[in-house]
Amino acid sequence: MKLSEIDTPAVLIDVDRTEANMQRFQAYADSHKLAVRPHIKTHKLPRFAKRQVELGAVGITCQKIGEAEVMADAGIKDIFLPYNIIGKAKLDRLIVLNNRVKLAVTADSEVTICGLAEAFTGTSKSLDVLVECDTGMGRCGVQTPDEAVELARLIAASDRLNFAGFMTFPKTGTVEETDAFLASAKDKAIAAGLDPRTISNGGSPDMWRAHEVTSATEHRPGTYIYMDRFQVSKGVGTWDDCALTVLATVVSRPTDDRAIVDAGSKALTSDTLGLDGFGRVVGYPEAVVTSLSEEHGAIDLTACKEKPQIGDRLRIIPNHCCVVSNLFDSVILISGDDVVEITPVAARGRVD
Amino acid sequence: MKLSEIDTPAVLIDVDRTEANMQRFQAYADSHKLAVRPHIKTHKLPRFAKRQVELGAVGITCQKIGEAEVMADAGIKDIFLPYNIIGKAKLDRLIVLNNRVKLAVTADSEVTICGLAEAFTGTSKSLDVLVECDTGMGRCGVQTPDEAVELARLIAASDRLNFAGFMTFPKTGTVEETDAFLASAKDKAIAAGLDPRTISNGGSPDMWRAHEVTSATEHRPGTYIYMDRFQVSKGVGTWDDCALTVLATVVSRPTDDRAIVDAGSKALTSDTLGLDGFGRVVGYPEAVVTSLSEEHGAIDLTACKEKPQIGDRLRIIPNHCCVVSNLFDSVILISGDDVVEITPVAARGRVD
Repeated sequence: MKLSEIDTPAVLIDVDRTEANMQRFQAYADSHKLAVRPHIKTHKLPRFAKRQVELGAVGITCQKIGEAEVMADAGIKDIFLPYNIIGKAKLDRLIVLNNRVKLAVTADSEVTICGLAEAFTGTSKSLDVLVECDTGMGRCGVQTPDEAVELARLIAASDRLNFAGFMTFPKTGTVEETDAFLASAKDKAIAAGLDPRTISNGGSPDMWRAHEVTSATEHRPGTYIYMDRFQVSKGVGTWDDCALTVLATVVSRPTDDRAIVDAGSKALTSDTLGLDGFGRVVGYPEAVVTSLSEEHGAIDLTACKEKPQIGDRLRIIPNHCCVVSNLFDSVILISGDDVVEITPVAARGRVD
Repeated sequence: MKLSEIDTPAVLIDVDRTEANMQRFQAYADSHKLAVRPHIKTHKLPRFAKRQVELGAVGITCQKIGEAEVMADAGIKDIFLPYNIIGKAKLDRLIVLNNRVKLAVTADSEVTICGLAEAFTGTSKSLDVLVECDTGMGRCGVQTPDEAVELARLIAASDRLNFAGFMTFPKTGTVEETDAFLASAKDKAIAAGLDPRTISNGGSPDMWRAHEVTSATEHRPGTYIYMDRFQVSKGVGTWDDCALTVLATVVSRPTDDRAIVDAGSKALTSDTLGLDGFGRVVGYPEAVVTSLSEEHGAIDLTACKEKPQIGDRLRIIPNHCCVVSNLFDSVILISGDDVVEITPVAARGRVD
């Protein structure tokens, strides 16, 4: 089957680029003796999770229990779930999951830790828990190394929980601050007689500087497998590394300078990540995806020398590839112009 | 089953508010002798499409053939697909769909019309086609009433296509301009011996002024059934009319002023529609949903007198409810605190 036989809009995944992206970061991490634990939120596909492990990843990262369940079903044996798991429904599922795979979660509060400790009382297998640290992102996480150690003690003191280390999702461009926080937490934990054996750092934007966070033992890149317009804007990869594109058809050319394609926010999402426009049109670098409705993308062709016509098919590199994976029930794996396989996005829509 | 038994994040649909919203607009339109043709993109649920028709809608609007197929399967008999249908794969499906229901599509170019005319040659049932007009939105549509009539002639001259009228999706706040364009196209079409029997206007933001577009014969509101933060900001409804909320749990309180909930862009979407923040927290009007990651929503509680604690469950009215419907495989229908039914979003993810 050829790419030309695929109807639009569709999500194309270039398997050759994906393979190269996975290998490139694994080789970098290997050279720095840094463990890799890819975040599967980007692809949500068991095949790529398995390939990441084959290439040397120590395990994977999932953000939701539902995603982890899909990956455990697919045979993945080592899963990190860097999330505060709250409430009986999720804790019950967590106990089941912990019996199936090598599992770790995070906590950033006494409430979360007490909930985990209570739920795991009397279970046959104890749970690894890392303390989440806010090293600048302003999302979850304790605010100081001292708080991190305080929670580490609480975990270690719990009968069925194991203190397993520290974790952060850093703000882009804060390599030094991230390392300073984690190194301090690590030193203080050791001084307190604790064993922070895993120091887990994450993110793709600063992934080529991951080795500069010398306190970290592992890195959790997500977007690196597909790359996208945001990562290219940060210099993490090139346009030729971008493995995920949205295939769209020009359905209207209402004016000389405007094209409308059949990919809107339901295909590209409204994520801007601070960029202007909603994607990069392959082959039309001067084109600007100016606005999205749910089923229409408006492209300004003013600066384009050649302009696509109605019926032409365009490939658009989205601002943020991870959120695109969550919109489509299936994606088209391609190699050049050949369709390798149409595959369901197994962990799509796993909201809890 | 009670709402308290539902795990988070989840999309809640208050069926009482939904019913009131449907009835309110239908009554308004009836009083102005304006036909209602609701856009099902907002709910994507056959049950509400059927209810809209029961209450007096002349039919429904879908944006994708895949959505229309789901609605035809559910027994809906009259469907408007205001889209340029391009390419053999979609045209083949359109022919099948046209044989199942009363169908109409739009076109805004000779290319689209010629494609339709060629595809329908030799078919047993001809296709209704309206000309799409760009009355200010800057999306699809012919730019002038004269162009509209030119395409109308082309449709009428085709053996298997019927010219059925004009359609627009207007820019918010352009009631006069919209009416002027449509009235001019209508007059010119009649003068040319054509019969523009349907003049179809759309959108929820200006829906209470729909009767001022005196040339229009029908209106296609979408969001009106659920309402959302954007519609409230436009004065179309009140907070108490908002039928769709995202139920989320506070999973972290890293600082005194910050709460993190388990609803991020995968639940609320990144759509801002020009608003600050990403939703309204019910019961915490001073709270600001400042940023979203895929699985985390960050809420600034600085201005809140009372602050939610870890484990508390919040209901968030999203900026744009339609895009939320497309993210969840199922939604929770509620009445007060009772769960009426958990129902699959049948037309979710129908991308083509």
